[in-house]
Amino acid sequence: MTVRQNQQSSIEAPLPNSQRVYVRGTTDGVEVPFREISLNVTKGFDGRTEVNEPVRVYDASGPWGDPAFTGDVRDGLPALRRDWILSRGDVEEYEGRIIQPIDNGYRSREEAKYAREKERGRLEEFPGLRRQPLRAKAGRAVTQMHYARRGMITPEMEYIAIRENLGREAAIEALKSGERNDLNFQHPGEPFGARIPRYVTPEFIRDEVARGRAIIPTNINHPETEPMIIGRNFLVKINANIGNSAVASSIEEEVEKMRWATRWGADTVMDLSTGKNIHETREWIIRNSPVPIGTVPIYQALEKVGGKAEELTWEIYRDTLIEQAEQGVDYFTIHAGVRLPYIPMTAKRTTGIVSRGGSIMAKWCLAHHRESFLYTHFREICEIMRAYDVSFSLGDGLRPGSIADANDEAQFAELETLGELTKIAWELDCQVMIEGPGHVPMHMIRENMDKQLASCDEAPFYTLGPLTTDIAPGYDHITSAIGAAMIGWFGTAMLCYVTPKEHLGLPDKKDVKDGVIAYKIAAHAADLAKGHPGAQQRDNAVSKARFEFRWEDQFNLSLDPETAREFHDETLPQEGAKAAHFCSMCGPHFCSMKITQDVRDYAARQGIDEQKALEAGMLEKAEEFKQAGAEIYVKA
Amino acid sequence: MTVRQNQQSSIEAPLPNSQRVYVRGTTDGVEVPFREISLNVTKGFDGRTEVNEPVRVYDASGPWGDPAFTGDVRDGLPALRRDWILSRGDVEEYEGRIIQPIDNGYRSREEAKYAREKERGRLEEFPGLRRQPLRAKAGRAVTQMHYARRGMITPEMEYIAIRENLGREAAIEALKSGERNDLNFQHPGEPFGARIPRYVTPEFIRDEVARGRAIIPTNINHPETEPMIIGRNFLVKINANIGNSAVASSIEEEVEKMRWATRWGADTVMDLSTGKNIHETREWIIRNSPVPIGTVPIYQALEKVGGKAEELTWEIYRDTLIEQAEQGVDYFTIHAGVRLPYIPMTAKRTTGIVSRGGSIMAKWCLAHHRESFLYTHFREICEIMRAYDVSFSLGDGLRPGSIADANDEAQFAELETLGELTKIAWELDCQVMIEGPGHVPMHMIRENMDKQLASCDEAPFYTLGPLTTDIAPGYDHITSAIGAAMIGWFGTAMLCYVTPKEHLGLPDKKDVKDGVIAYKIAAHAADLAKGHPGAQQRDNAVSKARFEFRWEDQFNLSLDPETAREFHDETLPQEGAKAAHFCSMCGPHFCSMKITQDVRDYAARQGIDEQKALEAGMLEKAEEFKQAGAEIYVKA
Repeated sequence: MTVRQNQQSSIEAPLPNSQRVYVRGTTDGVEVPFREISLNVTKGFDGRTEVNEPVRVYDASGPWGDPAFTGDVRDGLPALRRDWILSRGDVEEYEGRIIQPIDNGYRSREEAKYAREKERGRLEEFPGLRRQPLRAKAGRAVTQMHYARRGMITPEMEYIAIRENLGREAAIEALKSGERNDLNFQHPGEPFGARIPRYVTPEFIRDEVARGRAIIPTNINHPETEPMIIGRNFLVKINANIGNSAVASSIEEEVEKMRWATRWGADTVMDLSTGKNIHETREWIIRNSPVPIGTVPIYQALEKVGGKAEELTWEIYRDTLIEQAEQGVDYFTIHAGVRLPYIPMTAKRTTGIVSRGGSIMAKWCLAHHRESFLYTHFREICEIMRAYDVSFSLGDGLRPGSIADANDEAQFAELETLGELTKIAWELDCQVMIEGPGHVPMHMIRENMDKQLASCDEAPFYTLGPLTTDIAPGYDHITSAIGAAMIGWFGTAMLCYVTPKEHLGLPDKKDVKDGVIAYKIAAHAADLAKGHPGAQQRDNAVSKARFEFRWEDQFNLSLDPETAREFHDETLPQEGAKAAHFCSMCGPHFCSMKITQDVRDYAARQGIDEQKALEAGMLEKAEEFKQAGAEIYVKA
Repeated sequence: MTVRQNQQSSIEAPLPNSQRVYVRGTTDGVEVPFREISLNVTKGFDGRTEVNEPVRVYDASGPWGDPAFTGDVRDGLPALRRDWILSRGDVEEYEGRIIQPIDNGYRSREEAKYAREKERGRLEEFPGLRRQPLRAKAGRAVTQMHYARRGMITPEMEYIAIRENLGREAAIEALKSGERNDLNFQHPGEPFGARIPRYVTPEFIRDEVARGRAIIPTNINHPETEPMIIGRNFLVKINANIGNSAVASSIEEEVEKMRWATRWGADTVMDLSTGKNIHETREWIIRNSPVPIGTVPIYQALEKVGGKAEELTWEIYRDTLIEQAEQGVDYFTIHAGVRLPYIPMTAKRTTGIVSRGGSIMAKWCLAHHRESFLYTHFREICEIMRAYDVSFSLGDGLRPGSIADANDEAQFAELETLGELTKIAWELDCQVMIEGPGHVPMHMIRENMDKQLASCDEAPFYTLGPLTTDIAPGYDHITSAIGAAMIGWFGTAMLCYVTPKEHLGLPDKKDVKDGVIAYKIAAHAADLAKGHPGAQQRDNAVSKARFEFRWEDQFNLSLDPETAREFHDETLPQEGAKAAHFCSMCGPHFCSMKITQDVRDYAARQGIDEQKALEAGMLEKAEEFKQAGAEIYVKA
């Protein structure tokens, strides 16, 4: 048995046969990155050749994925969107909140200093530029929804239009010519089928954002973000969770995990850090992240009160929201739907309340016997969100933690409240998505999507899996990829990944990659099932490469070229085998693809349609083929 | 980053906290094995304890999974079913076919001897008992379908009834009392929902087999098999493919893979060996296999004609069927639906014909410009099958090899023919299942199931995945587990596993395990979605253990206890951590399950229903809880 080493490529090395290309839009600075995978020429058994066009794929890795970029994590990324934000004339720089030791979990500056000296390297402060924070001028909203509702197509929207079209030439031309396709709207819960637009236009994006059916998570204090969209009429997105905890991991590891996750395709990253140094960890992550960053602010607020849920206050929470909004967090998970009357509904569950945020709020509510301050202060929260364009990710604090608890009263009661809160947020032009489960057996998945669309008026759905069985800890990236693919097809806009370590421990780099790849598979399977334009192009390219024995192309086009190559080489490591017209499954004398090729070549050699040939009855040709077939093989 | 060694347990070591138990039926020798997982006592935060009953799980590992069994692979397994077979009085021992050097791919005895001496150890002949083969007495059929149609409940059927009920006491009692539940039949393609019977009775099994809706693959020459059933009203089964090829692997490795696959839950194993020593490899595998063995006889027939498809004849093929039937192969994949007129339908495909058997037959048909001899001799094939009770697995030689080719004309034309052949086989009391794709995007999966049920009159469906995207070579156990879970829910009776090496190379032991676990997940997710009685019991036990921080129980109840434990220990290796009321994801101060426990304990302490407590308004209790909550934690 082979010992399979965990030989991961360096975070810096470009993926094989790939180059970074940019597609320019009409607005200054709109230069959308793609990874373009070059392919080899097809060499037929008969000596004919055919050129294979390169394939462009969506690229979430940001400047880190551009070999020409020479930046350093100590400086952070360039502020791509800074000019767009300032040129709208609706924001102002201001002094901002002063960072307190407690923001990092220390009671005093001395304690913080001592801890940093003790753990030098692990806890270094971010040394790069700290900008003055921006916020909306008094009374203004600076959200993409606000602009969309006023009919503005922002540079962010144009950027996204190019991105969602996967940089396809025809689509780009169509965009420039102003072509529109308005046959886009779906009935709630209905898979796309043939209804998908051929091209995604900036106007369509504006319209979807205005309608609340999609969000563009882009805090004005995170100008490093490359704009992306979350909505069910677009490519299905995936989120990767990272974050240190009280028990393990350093800041450096978390930054590396963020870059690592985006390298393999994470569209957003949530920093779920707990324990010490939350503020500083987040600073490092945001300054280096090309993708939107989400957080659960209650985690940090809880640290500020020493882990005692009952000591949380609205003021501490509010201050934490502002702290994080000034840093540039793009979306906040807020469990404002965990209302006091719903909590007892969970007492008879097999697994009670498994959401951390949900259980903190439940504890607070019961301790005070009062309605959640997140619910009672919801409008004030909206005021903060709109001043920085932080999107809501309305948390499902009462999601089921097991198959036994799926789709129960508590879960759906909370969902109704999330719908109610969505409408309030929309009144204030805040962008909203809705979090969903969790653990759901297959036959109960569809109900989640249908109810979410109905309750939340089609706000984008963002689910964790769901896991379709509880019996496979260690493999929950698989138990949940099944549910994720299905719910993605039904209309979920973003899928929160689950790693193999779920329920067992903190993910390391290998787990992050395994989780991201499993979720790229689920998201892409959903895109195919929805019929997203351009999605099948990559499948077809892989299949053609496979059929033509272009092994290198098959590896390079795959989600994980390294693993594909490594697996192939375990059986046939010789370089020659990668040009060979056979593989180790069948050996050189027994290859179905070779035989099919013969069938096809045979038909082509006759110069007539095979059907006609058969109808004409050509027994006399059979003997000829028999000999030709044998010869063809020897040549190969 | 951790280097994760491939530390697999020995094939011999029992799984943790598990013991082998047997549930006896009424017939002599009906002793059905289960693995019983013992659980720890629940210790509440408040000191209360609760006993957790052991959980019985289906066990495919045969005598190898019984620590009391001391057999050796050089002897093979005991002949469990021998007496049942003989006591039916319809079989006879006979001389049998003489093994030829060509059966192992050698042109002469000298060549065979030379090869064996050269590769001593790798190619040793099976040293154990070689029984005289059995066959039906002249004119008799000895298939389980034949018995079922005559109203006989065989010991095999009784065995299966106990097995399908997962040995649950209540079900066993019900069986003994003769209780029946006839509300079992489904409409084609309709998920079970509430229609599933509470218990599976022997009479129900007889009825399903008689109807052709289920098969019991049990060659009379493979008395070592522990009976199992394949049908959509039963637990979803999985198959693992093994087999050496011309390029790699030895006999010993293949036998070990078979045992390894059944250890992790493979319900049947297909030996897809090619190249030399096919006959001998199969002898070793069958004599040691507690699960039904399937093969694709055309592979061996092709070896006998030096790999030249056009030189195949009906006589060589027929002789190979008899050779394998005498050895004890339980089901044959026969690509009799690859008819001459369908072959040209594949010429315009992206990936032509990808089934090995399908392409061999296509080549033969084109070379001779004649209808397939499998099709023209189908009744003769049936005569052989019924004399040994070899089940048909009617192969889908024209299945799609890519998303681009899914559900096309060629695929469905062949399916119609498979339906026509099913009816012929049934006329002769032969058991039949139907093979299905392959590569199918999610939105096209259901059509496969619906068409199969309609075309093949509800004969069990046996699909390969299907893969739901082509872009992830190296992860096709995941791309296909998604499709497998869905089609299993829709009614597919057995799922053929796909390993991470699919399209890339031959699976090693790690790949076999990864493939089996991914497919156990898919099959179990389907059982849950169908509402199979008893299926959710294991999920509930895992969830309860998880919620109660019974870490050891969570590991032991999982499909792969070793991996679950290893993942946990990567972050928190200390033994103490496994009894701890927290985990590395959240750390000791911040655990959602702990908080839920507090909520529940709180309600319990009040001695009143929480809802009532809230309604009564108990602000005065809040302060009390606040202090109690803090104390509770210190105790933990």
